[in-house]
Amino acid sequence: MPNKSLHTVWHRATITRQRREQKNAHKSVVLWFTGLSGSGKSTLAHTVEEQLFLSGLSTFVLDGDNVRHGLCNDLGFSDTDRKENIRRISETAKLLLEAGVITLTAFISPFKAERATARNLMPNGDFIEIYCFCPLPVCERRDVKGLYKKARLGEIKDFTGISSPYEEPENPELIINTSQFTLEESAQLVISLLRDRNILSAVE
Amino acid sequence: MPNKSLHTVWHRATITRQRREQKNAHKSVVLWFTGLSGSGKSTLAHTVEEQLFLSGLSTFVLDGDNVRHGLCNDLGFSDTDRKENIRRISETAKLLLEAGVITLTAFISPFKAERATARNLMPNGDFIEIYCFCPLPVCERRDVKGLYKKARLGEIKDFTGISSPYEEPENPELIINTSQFTLEESAQLVISLLRDRNILSAVE
Repeated sequence: MPNKSLHTVWHRATITRQRREQKNAHKSVVLWFTGLSGSGKSTLAHTVEEQLFLSGLSTFVLDGDNVRHGLCNDLGFSDTDRKENIRRISETAKLLLEAGVITLTAFISPFKAERATARNLMPNGDFIEIYCFCPLPVCERRDVKGLYKKARLGEIKDFTGISSPYEEPENPELIINTSQFTLEESAQLVISLLRDRNILSAVE
Repeated sequence: MPNKSLHTVWHRATITRQRREQKNAHKSVVLWFTGLSGSGKSTLAHTVEEQLFLSGLSTFVLDGDNVRHGLCNDLGFSDTDRKENIRRISETAKLLLEAGVITLTAFISPFKAERATARNLMPNGDFIEIYCFCPLPVCERRDVKGLYKKARLGEIKDFTGISSPYEEPENPELIINTSQFTLEESAQLVISLLRDRNILSAVE
């Protein structure tokens, strides 16, 4: 058998993001939800995803459930580890963006610098920061996972809002006061923003 | 304004992998290409991807180009770093699998243990190992990136096949001798395997 491949140039095919967006008939984007524990980030992200998915769009949510036990299972909650956590999430979101997927991330992401790094990693306009604002006392009253109680007792260290800072976004694309809106209303705010930015319309 | 959300349970919606597969009308799977530098892994992965994409499937390739400069840009080529590199790639592939995407990874991935870890991370049958076999002298003669020359001169340390071992797969789903087949023939072998396994057919 002749050694064909030695005499054949193996051309490299590449499917670009643009071709994926054309196939999907919508643009890809990163929706970066940030806010205190209990502010409703993850619930809102999943609700927005469901609405988009049911409209036929390609979507995915990165959150603590699928990242902390997997890609970032070697990281703790020190400042250094939080920084690396957000870096990896940002890079993964960027891959999903390239894959043509509307990517929703739901992490406290308390530090301005890391959110800025995430934003700067994406092409201009492809990073939409959504601040899920909720007063600390309300988050603490909800305390769905019982984490605030443990943090107050000192059983959890470096807990955002209690023993570790949350640096509020200065200029997010959207602020939602989740203590004042229902889940449906909050989801509608996000989807309206995507419509206004022509993310959901077919790509030329 | 009443504090509505405090009196409303925020139900968590979750779009499952199964629902994504139904929408896409194909299953998701991880195609794990392994082999020496120059064995044609990445070129083959991109060619297979193009054929699948042109058939309307959701696909993505993870390779050195989009991972080494991003998610794994803090890692070198020591055994420890190679191990962590493959771990992160595996976890990212798993996320893409969950996202309903046919995910092709093209990394030397020289160690059996790390490939086994990647395989064990995925649900049974969702990891397809494709060994791009190519004799070292052929890879070295190709030396597209000039890396073998540098490795022989000692300018690159821990180079697989020269100064670092490549542990051959013992029981991969597919072995392709890329020195004996054209790119088109090689791609056809992969696609035939996917057909045989009903990956490409509509999901119930």
